[in-house]
Amino acid sequence: MNIAYLGPRGTFSEQAAERFMRSIGQQGSLSPLASIEDVFEAVETGKADYGVVPIENSIEGGVNATIDTLTFDSDLFISRQLTLPIAQNLMVSKKNNDRKITKIISHPQALAQCRKFINRTYPDAIAEVTSSTAEAARIAAACESDEVIAAIGPKNSADIYDLEILNENIQENKNNMTQFVLLTKTDTSAPKVGCSTSVVFSTKDKPGELYRVLGIFAIWDLNLTRILSRPTKNRQGEYVFFIEISEYEDVADVSEALEMIRRKTIFFKNLGTYYTVKV
Amino acid sequence: MNIAYLGPRGTFSEQAAERFMRSIGQQGSLSPLASIEDVFEAVETGKADYGVVPIENSIEGGVNATIDTLTFDSDLFISRQLTLPIAQNLMVSKKNNDRKITKIISHPQALAQCRKFINRTYPDAIAEVTSSTAEAARIAAACESDEVIAAIGPKNSADIYDLEILNENIQENKNNMTQFVLLTKTDTSAPKVGCSTSVVFSTKDKPGELYRVLGIFAIWDLNLTRILSRPTKNRQGEYVFFIEISEYEDVADVSEALEMIRRKTIFFKNLGTYYTVKV
Repeated sequence: MNIAYLGPRGTFSEQAAERFMRSIGQQGSLSPLASIEDVFEAVETGKADYGVVPIENSIEGGVNATIDTLTFDSDLFISRQLTLPIAQNLMVSKKNNDRKITKIISHPQALAQCRKFINRTYPDAIAEVTSSTAEAARIAAACESDEVIAAIGPKNSADIYDLEILNENIQENKNNMTQFVLLTKTDTSAPKVGCSTSVVFSTKDKPGELYRVLGIFAIWDLNLTRILSRPTKNRQGEYVFFIEISEYEDVADVSEALEMIRRKTIFFKNLGTYYTVKV
Repeated sequence: MNIAYLGPRGTFSEQAAERFMRSIGQQGSLSPLASIEDVFEAVETGKADYGVVPIENSIEGGVNATIDTLTFDSDLFISRQLTLPIAQNLMVSKKNNDRKITKIISHPQALAQCRKFINRTYPDAIAEVTSSTAEAARIAAACESDEVIAAIGPKNSADIYDLEILNENIQENKNNMTQFVLLTKTDTSAPKVGCSTSVVFSTKDKPGELYRVLGIFAIWDLNLTRILSRPTKNRQGEYVFFIEISEYEDVADVSEALEMIRRKTIFFKNLGTYYTVKV
Protein backbone atom coordinates (compact mmCIF):
# COMPACT_ATOMS: atom_id res chain seq x y z
CA MET A 1 0.00 0.00 0.00
CA ASN A 2 1.42 3.37 -1.03
CA ILE A 3 0.27 6.85 0.05
CA ALA A 4 1.39 9.88 -1.99
CA TYR A 5 1.46 13.24 -0.20
CA LEU A 6 2.37 16.86 -0.83
CA GLY A 7 6.12 16.92 -0.13
CA PRO A 8 8.89 17.55 0.45
CA ARG A 9 9.66 15.46 3.54
CA GLY A 10 9.31 17.20 6.90
CA THR A 11 6.06 19.06 6.20
CA PHE A 12 2.69 18.97 7.95
CA SER A 13 1.37 16.94 5.00
CA GLU A 14 3.85 14.19 5.89
CA GLN A 15 2.56 14.17 9.50
CA ALA A 16 -1.00 13.85 8.13
CA ALA A 17 0.04 11.01 5.77
CA GLU A 18 1.64 9.09 8.68
CA ARG A 19 -1.54 9.48 10.75
CA PHE A 20 -3.79 8.34 7.86
CA MET A 21 -1.51 5.31 7.33
CA ARG A 22 -1.94 4.29 11.00
CA SER A 23 -5.71 4.79 10.78
CA ILE A 24 -5.90 2.42 7.79
CA GLY A 25 -3.99 -0.15 9.85
CA GLN A 26 -1.81 -1.47 7.02
CA GLN A 27 1.92 -1.42 6.33
CA GLY A 28 3.04 0.65 3.37
CA SER A 29 5.23 3.39 2.00
CA LEU A 30 4.85 7.19 1.87
CA SER A 31 5.88 9.09 -1.30
CA PRO A 32 6.48 12.86 -1.14
CA LEU A 33 5.47 14.58 -4.45
CA ALA A 34 6.19 18.08 -5.72
CA SER A 35 2.67 19.53 -6.01
CA ILE A 36 -0.98 18.99 -5.12
CA GLU A 37 -1.69 18.26 -8.80
CA ASP A 38 1.00 15.52 -8.77
CA VAL A 39 -0.67 13.86 -5.76
CA PHE A 40 -4.01 13.75 -7.61
CA GLU A 41 -2.30 12.32 -10.71
CA ALA A 42 -0.48 9.60 -8.76
CA VAL A 43 -3.80 8.31 -7.37
CA GLU A 44 -5.62 8.64 -10.70
CA THR A 45 -2.97 6.66 -12.58
CA GLY A 46 -2.75 4.00 -9.85
CA LYS A 47 0.87 4.84 -8.92
CA ALA A 48 -0.43 5.44 -5.39
CA ASP A 49 -3.38 3.85 -3.57
CA TYR A 50 -4.20 7.03 -1.67
CA GLY A 51 -3.21 10.71 -1.76
CA VAL A 52 -2.95 13.24 1.09
CA VAL A 53 -3.46 16.98 0.46
CA PRO A 54 -4.40 19.99 2.65
CA ILE A 55 -7.93 21.30 2.01
CA GLU A 56 -8.50 24.17 4.45
CA ASN A 57 -6.54 26.22 6.97
CA SER A 58 -8.35 27.90 9.86
CA ILE A 59 -6.63 31.23 9.10
CA GLU A 60 -5.82 31.24 5.39
CA GLY A 61 -9.09 29.57 4.33
CA GLY A 62 -9.55 26.99 1.57
CA VAL A 63 -6.54 25.56 -0.30
CA ASN A 64 -7.35 26.65 -3.84
CA ALA A 65 -5.33 24.00 -5.71
CA THR A 66 -7.07 21.17 -3.81
CA ILE A 67 -10.59 22.56 -4.09
CA ASP A 68 -10.24 23.47 -7.78
CA THR A 69 -8.71 20.11 -8.76
CA LEU A 70 -11.39 18.17 -6.84
CA THR A 71 -14.06 20.32 -8.50
CA PHE A 72 -12.92 20.62 -12.10
CA ASP A 73 -10.04 18.28 -12.94
CA SER A 74 -10.36 14.97 -11.11
CA ASP A 75 -12.68 12.05 -10.38
CA LEU A 76 -11.18 11.21 -7.01
CA PHE A 77 -13.19 11.06 -3.80
CA ILE A 78 -12.46 11.98 -0.20
CA SER A 79 -12.32 8.89 2.01
CA ARG A 80 -11.07 10.26 5.37
CA GLN A 81 -10.17 13.60 6.92
CA LEU A 82 -8.15 14.87 9.86
CA THR A 83 -7.20 18.25 11.34
CA LEU A 84 -3.65 19.03 12.55
CA PRO A 85 -2.56 21.95 14.76
CA ILE A 86 0.01 24.04 12.84
CA ALA A 87 2.94 25.00 15.07
CA GLN A 88 5.96 26.82 13.62
CA ASN A 89 9.47 26.72 15.10
CA LEU A 90 12.71 28.65 14.60
CA MET A 91 15.55 26.27 13.81
CA VAL A 92 19.29 26.58 13.07
CA SER A 93 22.13 24.24 12.20
CA LYS A 94 23.58 22.67 15.37
CA LYS A 95 26.95 24.15 14.40
CA ASN A 96 25.46 27.66 14.51
CA ASN A 97 23.28 27.73 17.57
CA ASP A 98 25.39 30.18 19.58
CA ARG A 99 25.86 32.76 16.83
CA LYS A 100 23.82 35.81 15.87
CA ILE A 101 21.03 35.12 13.37
CA THR A 102 21.33 37.38 10.31
CA LYS A 103 18.67 35.86 8.05
CA ILE A 104 15.35 34.07 8.64
CA ILE A 105 13.94 32.06 5.76
CA SER A 106 10.72 30.12 5.11
CA HIS A 107 7.68 29.71 2.88
CA PRO A 108 5.89 33.11 2.57
CA GLN A 109 2.87 31.82 4.54
CA ALA A 110 5.02 30.63 7.46
CA LEU A 111 6.94 33.95 7.50
CA ALA A 112 3.63 35.84 7.58
CA GLN A 113 2.36 33.69 10.46
CA CYS A 114 5.48 34.52 12.50
CA ARG A 115 6.04 38.17 11.51
CA LYS A 116 5.37 39.56 15.00
CA PHE A 117 7.74 37.05 16.61
CA ILE A 118 10.52 37.94 14.12
CA ASN A 119 10.10 41.71 14.62
CA ARG A 120 10.11 41.35 18.40
CA THR A 121 12.87 38.75 18.84
CA TYR A 122 15.17 39.22 15.81
CA PRO A 123 14.48 42.81 14.68
CA ASP A 124 17.80 42.98 12.73
CA ALA A 125 17.39 39.71 10.81
CA ILE A 126 16.47 39.82 7.12
CA ALA A 127 13.44 37.70 6.11
CA GLU A 128 13.64 35.81 2.81
CA VAL A 129 11.19 33.52 1.04
CA THR A 130 11.75 29.89 -0.01
CA SER A 131 9.49 27.52 -1.93
CA SER A 132 8.65 25.42 1.16
CA THR A 133 9.41 25.16 4.88
CA ALA A 134 11.44 22.01 4.13
CA GLU A 135 13.54 23.88 1.53
CA ALA A 136 14.21 26.49 4.23
CA ALA A 137 15.30 23.75 6.67
CA ARG A 138 17.61 22.25 4.04
CA ILE A 139 19.29 25.64 3.39
CA ALA A 140 19.64 26.36 7.13
CA ALA A 141 21.26 22.95 7.69
CA ALA A 142 23.80 23.56 4.87
CA CYS A 143 24.69 27.05 6.11
CA GLU A 144 28.39 27.21 7.04
CA SER A 145 29.30 30.82 6.38
CA ASP A 146 29.62 33.69 8.84
CA GLU A 147 25.99 34.66 8.40
CA VAL A 148 23.67 32.39 10.37
CA ILE A 149 20.50 31.44 8.51
CA ALA A 150 17.53 30.28 10.60
CA ALA A 151 14.57 28.40 9.12
CA ILE A 152 10.93 28.51 10.23
CA GLY A 153 9.01 25.25 9.92
CA PRO A 154 7.42 22.22 11.57
CA LYS A 155 9.24 20.15 14.20
CA ASN A 156 9.64 17.06 12.04
CA SER A 157 11.85 19.00 9.62
CA ALA A 158 14.27 19.62 12.51
CA ASP A 159 14.60 15.83 12.90
CA ILE A 160 15.09 15.22 9.19
CA TYR A 161 17.68 17.97 8.68
CA ASP A 162 19.27 17.60 12.14
CA LEU A 163 18.52 21.18 13.21
CA GLU A 164 18.40 22.69 16.69
CA ILE A 165 15.03 24.20 17.68
CA LEU A 166 15.66 27.66 19.22
CA ASN A 167 12.04 28.79 19.66
CA GLU A 168 8.88 26.68 19.63
CA ASN A 169 5.30 27.52 18.65
CA ILE A 170 6.21 31.01 17.37
CA GLN A 171 3.24 31.62 15.06
CA GLU A 172 1.02 34.51 16.08
CA ASN A 173 -2.28 32.69 16.08
CA LYS A 174 -2.33 29.68 18.40
CA ASN A 175 -5.61 28.50 16.80
CA ASN A 176 -3.88 27.66 13.54
CA MET A 177 -5.23 24.32 12.24
CA THR A 178 -5.08 22.64 8.84
CA GLN A 179 -7.55 20.06 7.61
CA PHE A 180 -6.15 17.28 5.36
CA VAL A 181 -8.08 14.78 3.24
CA LEU A 182 -7.24 11.27 2.08
CA LEU A 183 -8.05 10.87 -1.63
CA THR A 184 -9.07 7.61 -3.26
CA LYS A 185 -10.37 6.32 -6.62
CA THR A 186 -13.12 4.39 -4.83
CA ASP A 187 -16.55 6.03 -5.14
CA THR A 188 -17.46 7.16 -1.60
CA SER A 189 -20.48 9.24 -2.59
CA ALA A 190 -23.12 7.20 -0.69
CA PRO A 191 -24.04 8.86 2.65
CA LYS A 192 -23.09 6.87 5.78
CA VAL A 193 -23.98 7.16 9.48
CA GLY A 194 -21.41 9.13 11.53
CA CYS A 195 -19.71 10.59 8.44
CA SER A 196 -19.45 14.01 6.78
CA THR A 197 -20.18 14.59 3.06
CA SER A 198 -18.73 17.27 0.77
CA VAL A 199 -20.37 18.60 -2.40
CA VAL A 200 -19.65 21.40 -4.89
CA PHE A 201 -22.27 23.09 -7.03
CA SER A 202 -22.96 26.24 -8.97
CA THR A 203 -26.29 27.91 -9.45
CA LYS A 204 -27.97 29.80 -12.27
CA ASP A 205 -26.80 33.45 -12.43
CA LYS A 206 -30.09 34.83 -11.06
CA PRO A 207 -30.80 36.78 -7.84
CA GLY A 208 -31.63 34.43 -4.96
CA GLU A 209 -30.41 31.16 -6.51
CA LEU A 210 -27.86 30.38 -3.78
CA TYR A 211 -30.57 31.25 -1.25
CA ARG A 212 -32.92 28.68 -2.79
CA VAL A 213 -30.25 25.94 -2.74
CA LEU A 214 -29.23 26.64 0.87
CA GLY A 215 -32.96 26.37 1.64
CA ILE A 216 -32.73 22.67 0.79
CA PHE A 217 -30.10 22.12 3.51
CA ALA A 218 -32.34 24.09 5.91
CA ILE A 219 -35.44 22.00 5.06
CA TRP A 220 -33.56 18.81 5.92
CA ASP A 221 -32.03 20.40 9.03
CA LEU A 222 -28.46 19.66 7.97
CA ASN A 223 -25.63 21.54 9.66
CA LEU A 224 -22.84 22.82 7.40
CA THR A 225 -19.21 22.79 8.65
CA ARG A 226 -17.85 24.58 5.59
CA ILE A 227 -19.13 27.04 2.99
CA LEU A 228 -16.44 28.23 0.58
CA SER A 229 -16.95 30.02 -2.72
CA ARG A 230 -14.47 29.81 -5.60
CA PRO A 231 -14.53 31.64 -8.93
CA THR A 232 -15.46 29.33 -11.85
CA LYS A 233 -12.43 30.65 -13.82
CA ASN A 234 -14.74 31.60 -16.69
CA ARG A 235 -16.17 34.93 -15.76
CA GLN A 236 -15.70 37.38 -12.86
CA GLY A 237 -18.66 37.02 -10.51
CA GLU A 238 -19.46 33.35 -11.26
CA TYR A 239 -18.88 31.02 -8.34
CA VAL A 240 -18.94 27.39 -7.36
CA PHE A 241 -19.85 26.69 -3.74
CA PHE A 242 -17.96 24.05 -1.81
CA ILE A 243 -19.98 22.79 1.14
CA GLU A 244 -19.37 20.19 3.85
CA ILE A 245 -22.33 18.64 5.66
CA SER A 246 -21.30 18.03 9.30
CA GLU A 247 -21.32 14.50 10.74
CA TYR A 248 -24.90 13.19 10.54
CA GLU A 249 -26.94 10.20 11.68
CA ASP A 250 -29.90 10.27 9.26
CA VAL A 251 -28.66 8.88 5.94
CA ALA A 252 -32.06 9.12 4.24
CA ASP A 253 -32.31 12.88 4.94
CA VAL A 254 -28.88 13.53 3.42
CA SER A 255 -29.65 11.38 0.37
CA GLU A 256 -32.92 13.26 -0.27
CA ALA A 257 -31.26 16.66 0.24
CA LEU A 258 -28.41 15.85 -2.18
CA GLU A 259 -30.88 14.62 -4.80
CA MET A 260 -32.86 17.88 -4.53
CA ILE A 261 -29.66 19.95 -4.78
CA ARG A 262 -28.49 18.02 -7.84
CA ARG A 263 -31.81 18.84 -9.57
CA LYS A 264 -31.82 22.54 -8.60
CA THR A 265 -28.24 23.41 -9.68
CA ILE A 266 -26.54 23.78 -13.09
CA PHE A 267 -23.40 21.97 -11.87
CA PHE A 268 -23.24 19.43 -9.05
CA LYS A 269 -20.55 17.04 -7.87
CA ASN A 270 -20.47 14.74 -4.84
CA LEU A 271 -16.90 14.71 -3.47
CA GLY A 272 -17.43 11.85 -1.07
CA THR A 273 -18.52 10.71 2.38
CA TYR A 274 -15.82 10.20 5.00
CA TYR A 275 -14.94 9.59 8.64
CA THR A 276 -12.89 12.02 10.72
CA VAL A 277 -9.62 10.50 11.98
CA LYS A 278 -8.90 11.64 15.55
CA VAL A 279 -5.43 13.15 16.03
CA MET B 1 -2.95 64.44 -3.20
CA ASN B 2 -1.11 61.20 -2.49
CA ILE B 3 -2.16 57.62 -3.32
CA ALA B 4 -0.40 54.71 -1.57
CA TYR B 5 -0.44 51.36 -3.36
CA LEU B 6 0.88 47.83 -2.96
CA GLY B 7 4.36 48.10 -4.47
CA PRO B 8 6.99 47.68 -5.63
CA ARG B 9 6.91 49.78 -8.80
CA GLY B 10 6.01 47.98 -12.00
CA THR B 11 3.14 45.85 -10.63
CA PHE B 12 -0.52 45.64 -11.62
CA SER B 13 -1.34 47.59 -8.44
CA GLU B 14 0.66 50.53 -9.84
CA GLN B 15 -1.38 50.39 -13.06
CA ALA B 16 -4.56 50.44 -10.98
CA ALA B 17 -3.28 53.37 -8.88
CA GLU B 18 -2.50 55.40 -12.04
CA ARG B 19 -6.00 54.73 -13.41
CA PHE B 20 -7.67 55.71 -10.09
CA MET B 21 -5.57 58.91 -10.03
CA ARG B 22 -6.86 59.86 -13.53
CA SER B 23 -10.45 59.05 -12.50
CA ILE B 24 -10.20 61.44 -9.55
CA GLY B 25 -8.97 64.13 -11.96
CA GLN B 26 -6.35 65.64 -9.65
CA GLN B 27 -2.57 65.90 -9.79
CA GLY B 28 -0.69 63.97 -7.14
CA SER B 29 1.97 61.44 -6.27
CA LEU B 30 1.92 57.63 -6.07
CA SER B 31 3.75 55.87 -3.21
CA PRO B 32 4.62 52.15 -3.50
CA LEU B 33 4.48 50.40 -0.08
CA ALA B 34 5.74 47.00 1.00
CA SER B 35 2.51 45.27 2.02
CA ILE B 36 -1.28 45.48 1.93
CA GLU B 37 -1.25 46.21 5.68
CA ASP B 38 1.15 49.14 5.09
CA VAL B 39 -1.25 50.65 2.52
CA PHE B 40 -4.11 50.50 5.04
CA GLU B 41 -1.92 52.09 7.71
CA ALA B 42 -0.78 54.95 5.41
CA VAL B 43 -4.40 55.95 4.80
CA GLU B 44 -5.46 55.49 8.44
CA THR B 45 -2.63 57.71 9.71
CA GLY B 46 -3.20 60.35 7.01
CA LYS B 47 0.19 59.79 5.32
CA ALA B 48 -1.79 59.04 2.15
CA ASP B 49 -5.20 60.36 1.03
CA TYR B 50 -6.13 57.10 -0.68
CA GLY B 51 -4.85 53.52 -0.82
CA VAL B 52 -5.00 50.98 -3.67
CA VAL B 53 -5.06 47.22 -2.98
CA PRO B 54 -6.20 44.11 -4.91
CA ILE B 55 -9.38 42.54 -3.54
CA GLU B 56 -10.22 39.59 -5.82
CA ASN B 57 -8.69 37.68 -8.71
CA SER B 58 -10.93 35.82 -11.16
CA ILE B 59 -8.83 32.64 -10.82
CA GLU B 60 -7.26 32.74 -7.37
CA GLY B 61 -10.32 34.15 -5.60
CA GLY B 62 -10.40 36.73 -2.81
CA VAL B 63 -7.19 38.42 -1.62
CA ASN B 64 -7.13 37.31 2.02
CA ALA B 65 -4.98 40.14 3.41
CA THR B 66 -7.30 42.80 1.94
CA ILE B 67 -10.56 41.13 2.97
CA ASP B 68 -9.35 40.30 6.48
CA THR B 69 -7.93 43.78 7.13
CA LEU B 70 -11.11 45.47 5.85
CA THR B 71 -13.17 43.14 8.03
CA PHE B 72 -11.26 42.98 11.30
CA ASP B 73 -8.46 45.54 11.50
CA SER B 74 -9.44 48.81 9.80
CA ASP B 75 -12.10 51.52 9.63
CA LEU B 76 -11.43 52.43 6.00
CA PHE B 77 -14.10 52.39 3.31
CA ILE B 78 -14.07 51.47 -0.37
CA SER B 79 -14.68 54.55 -2.55
CA ARG B 80 -14.06 53.23 -6.10
CA GLN B 81 -13.26 49.96 -7.81
CA LEU B 82 -11.82 48.83 -11.15
CA THR B 83 -10.93 45.51 -12.80
CA LEU B 84 -7.66 45.00 -14.75
CA PRO B 85 -6.84 42.15 -17.15
CA ILE B 86 -3.74 40.31 -15.83
CA ALA B 87 -1.29 39.57 -18.66
CA GLN B 88 2.13 38.03 -17.91
CA ASN B 89 5.23 38.41 -20.09
CA LEU B 90 8.65 36.76 -20.28
CA MET B 91 11.39 39.39 -20.10
CA VAL B 92 15.22 39.40 -20.15
CA SER B 93 17.97 41.98 -19.90
CA LYS B 94 18.60 43.63 -23.31
CA LYS B 95 22.21 42.44 -23.06
CA ASN B 96 21.02 38.82 -22.84
CA ASN B 97 18.26 38.53 -25.39
CA ASP B 98 20.11 36.23 -27.82
CA ARG B 99 21.38 33.73 -25.22
CA LYS B 100 19.83 30.54 -23.89
CA ILE B 101 17.59 31.03 -20.87
CA THR B 102 18.69 28.85 -17.95
CA LYS B 103 16.44 30.16 -15.17
CA ILE B 104 12.93 31.67 -15.05
CA ILE B 105 11.99 33.59 -11.92
CA SER B 106 8.84 35.26 -10.60
CA HIS B 107 6.29 35.43 -7.78
CA PRO B 108 4.91 31.90 -7.11
CA GLN B 109 1.44 32.91 -8.40
CA ALA B 110 2.83 34.23 -11.71
CA LEU B 111 4.97 31.09 -12.16
CA ALA B 112 1.90 28.93 -11.54
CA GLN B 113 -0.13 30.92 -14.09
CA CYS B 114 2.56 30.34 -16.75
CA ARG B 115 3.61 26.77 -15.91
CA LYS B 116 2.34 25.27 -19.19
CA PHE B 117 4.11 27.95 -21.26
CA ILE B 118 7.40 27.32 -19.41
CA ASN B 119 7.19 23.53 -19.82
CA ARG B 120 6.42 23.85 -23.53
CA THR B 121 8.80 26.66 -24.52
CA TYR B 122 11.69 26.43 -22.05
CA PRO B 123 11.58 22.81 -20.80
CA ASP B 124 15.21 22.94 -19.62
CA ALA B 125 14.94 26.17 -17.62
CA ILE B 126 14.83 26.04 -13.82
CA ALA B 127 11.90 27.91 -12.20
CA GLU B 128 12.63 29.86 -8.99
CA VAL B 129 10.42 31.96 -6.74
CA THR B 130 10.89 35.65 -5.82
CA SER B 131 8.88 37.82 -3.44
CA SER B 132 7.23 39.81 -6.29
CA THR B 133 7.19 40.09 -10.09
CA ALA B 134 9.05 43.42 -9.76
CA GLU B 135 11.80 41.77 -7.68
CA ALA B 136 12.11 39.18 -10.47
CA ALA B 137 12.44 41.99 -13.06
CA ARG B 138 15.11 43.70 -10.96
CA ILE B 139 17.16 40.47 -10.70
CA ALA B 140 16.79 39.72 -14.43
CA ALA B 141 17.97 43.26 -15.27
CA ALA B 142 21.06 42.90 -13.06
CA CYS B 143 21.98 39.48 -14.47
CA GLU B 144 25.41 39.62 -16.16
CA SER B 145 26.73 36.09 -15.70
CA ASP B 146 26.78 33.24 -18.21
CA GLU B 147 23.42 31.97 -17.02
CA VAL B 148 20.55 34.01 -18.45
CA ILE B 149 17.76 34.71 -15.97
CA ALA B 150 14.33 35.60 -17.40
CA ALA B 151 11.59 37.25 -15.32
CA ILE B 152 7.82 36.81 -15.64
CA GLY B 153 5.74 39.91 -14.92
CA PRO B 154 3.59 42.77 -16.18
CA LYS B 155 4.64 44.94 -19.12
CA ASN B 156 5.24 48.08 -17.09
CA SER B 157 8.06 46.36 -15.18
CA ALA B 158 9.86 45.92 -18.56
CA ASP B 159 9.78 49.73 -18.96
CA ILE B 160 10.98 50.41 -15.42
CA TYR B 161 13.85 47.89 -15.48
CA ASP B 162 14.64 48.36 -19.20
CA LEU B 163 13.97 44.72 -20.11
CA GLU B 164 13.25 43.17 -23.49
CA ILE B 165 9.89 41.36 -23.75
CA LEU B 166 10.47 37.96 -25.42
CA ASN B 167 6.95 36.53 -25.10
CA GLU B 168 3.68 38.34 -24.38
CA ASN B 169 0.48 37.20 -22.66
CA ILE B 170 1.93 33.83 -21.64
CA GLN B 171 -0.42 33.02 -18.75
CA GLU B 172 -2.54 29.92 -19.29
CA ASN B 173 -5.93 31.45 -18.58
CA LYS B 174 -6.71 34.42 -20.80
CA ASN B 175 -9.68 35.35 -18.56
CA ASN B 176 -7.39 36.37 -15.71
CA MET B 177 -8.69 39.61 -14.14
CA THR B 178 -7.97 41.34 -10.84
CA GLN B 179 -10.31 43.74 -9.09
CA PHE B 180 -8.71 46.63 -7.18
CA VAL B 181 -10.33 49.01 -4.68
CA LEU B 182 -9.55 52.58 -3.71
CA LEU B 183 -9.56 52.96 0.09
CA THR B 184 -10.48 56.16 1.93
CA LYS B 185 -11.11 57.39 5.48
CA THR B 186 -14.35 59.05 4.34
CA ASP B 187 -17.46 57.13 5.37
CA THR B 188 -19.04 55.89 2.11
CA SER B 189 -21.59 53.58 3.71
CA ALA B 190 -24.72 55.38 2.46
CA PRO B 191 -26.20 53.60 -0.62
CA LYS B 192 -26.11 55.63 -3.89
CA VAL B 193 -27.76 55.23 -7.29
CA GLY B 194 -25.54 53.45 -9.87
CA CYS B 195 -23.10 52.16 -7.22
CA SER B 196 -22.22 48.80 -5.68
CA THR B 197 -22.08 48.21 -1.91
CA SER B 198 -19.96 45.68 0.00
CA VAL B 199 -20.76 44.25 3.44
CA VAL B 200 -19.30 41.55 5.69
CA PHE B 201 -21.24 39.68 8.35
CA SER B 202 -21.25 36.52 10.36
CA THR B 203 -24.24 34.58 11.55
CA LYS B 204 -25.12 32.58 14.63
CA ASP B 205 -23.66 29.05 14.52
CA LYS B 206 -27.05 27.38 13.89
CA PRO B 207 -28.27 25.32 10.91
CA GLY B 208 -29.89 27.56 8.28
CA GLU B 209 -28.63 30.93 9.57
CA LEU B 210 -26.80 31.91 6.34
CA TYR B 211 -29.92 30.81 4.47
CA ARG B 212 -32.09 33.20 6.49
CA VAL B 213 -29.72 36.13 5.87
CA LEU B 214 -29.44 35.49 2.13
CA GLY B 215 -33.25 35.44 2.17
CA ILE B 216 -33.13 39.16 2.98
CA PHE B 217 -31.23 39.88 -0.24
CA ALA B 218 -33.75 37.72 -2.11
CA ILE B 219 -36.77 39.55 -0.59
CA TRP B 220 -35.37 42.89 -1.85
CA ASP B 221 -34.43 41.36 -5.21
CA LEU B 222 -30.78 42.43 -4.92
CA ASN B 223 -28.24 40.76 -7.19
CA LEU B 224 -24.93 39.76 -5.61
CA THR B 225 -21.67 40.04 -7.59
CA ARG B 226 -19.54 38.42 -4.95
CA ILE B 227 -20.02 35.90 -2.15
CA LEU B 228 -16.81 34.94 -0.37
CA SER B 229 -16.45 33.16 2.94
CA ARG B 230 -13.45 33.59 5.24
CA PRO B 231 -12.63 31.79 8.48
CA THR B 232 -13.10 34.05 11.55
CA LYS B 233 -9.64 32.97 12.84
CA ASN B 234 -11.21 31.88 16.13
CA ARG B 235 -12.53 28.43 15.48
CA GLN B 236 -12.49 26.00 12.53
CA GLY B 237 -15.91 26.10 10.86
CA GLU B 238 -16.80 29.70 11.80
CA TYR B 239 -17.04 32.05 8.84
CA VAL B 240 -17.60 35.66 7.91
CA PHE B 241 -19.32 36.25 4.59
CA PHE B 242 -18.11 39.03 2.32
CA ILE B 243 -20.81 40.07 -0.11
CA GLU B 244 -21.00 42.68 -2.88
CA ILE B 245 -24.38 43.97 -3.99
CA SER B 246 -24.24 44.61 -7.78
CA GLU B 247 -24.85 48.12 -9.16
CA TYR B 248 -28.38 49.13 -8.18
CA GLU B 249 -30.86 51.94 -8.81
CA ASP B 250 -33.22 51.64 -5.83
CA VAL B 251 -31.42 53.18 -2.84
CA ALA B 252 -34.36 52.67 -0.45
CA ASP B 253 -34.42 48.89 -1.09
CA VAL B 254 -30.71 48.56 -0.37
CA SER B 255 -30.96 50.65 2.81
CA GLU B 256 -33.85 48.53 4.10
CA ALA B 257 -32.07 45.27 3.24
CA LEU B 258 -28.86 46.34 5.00
CA GLU B 259 -30.79 47.38 8.10
CA MET B 260 -32.50 43.97 8.22
CA ILE B 261 -29.17 42.17 7.78
CA ARG B 262 -27.54 44.24 10.52
CA ARG B 263 -30.32 43.16 12.90
CA LYS B 264 -30.23 39.46 11.95
CA THR B 265 -26.45 38.89 12.23
CA ILE B 266 -24.05 38.70 15.18
CA PHE B 267 -21.40 40.74 13.32
CA PHE B 268 -22.05 43.28 10.54
CA LYS B 269 -19.87 45.86 8.83
CA ASN B 270 -20.65 48.13 5.87
CA LEU B 271 -17.46 48.43 3.77
CA GLY B 272 -18.75 51.21 1.56
CA THR B 273 -20.64 52.22 -1.57
CA TYR B 274 -18.60 52.92 -4.71
CA TYR B 275 -18.58 53.55 -8.45
CA THR B 276 -16.84 51.26 -10.92
CA VAL B 277 -14.06 53.03 -12.87
CA LYS B 278 -14.02 51.90 -16.52
CA VAL B 279 -10.61 50.67 -17.75
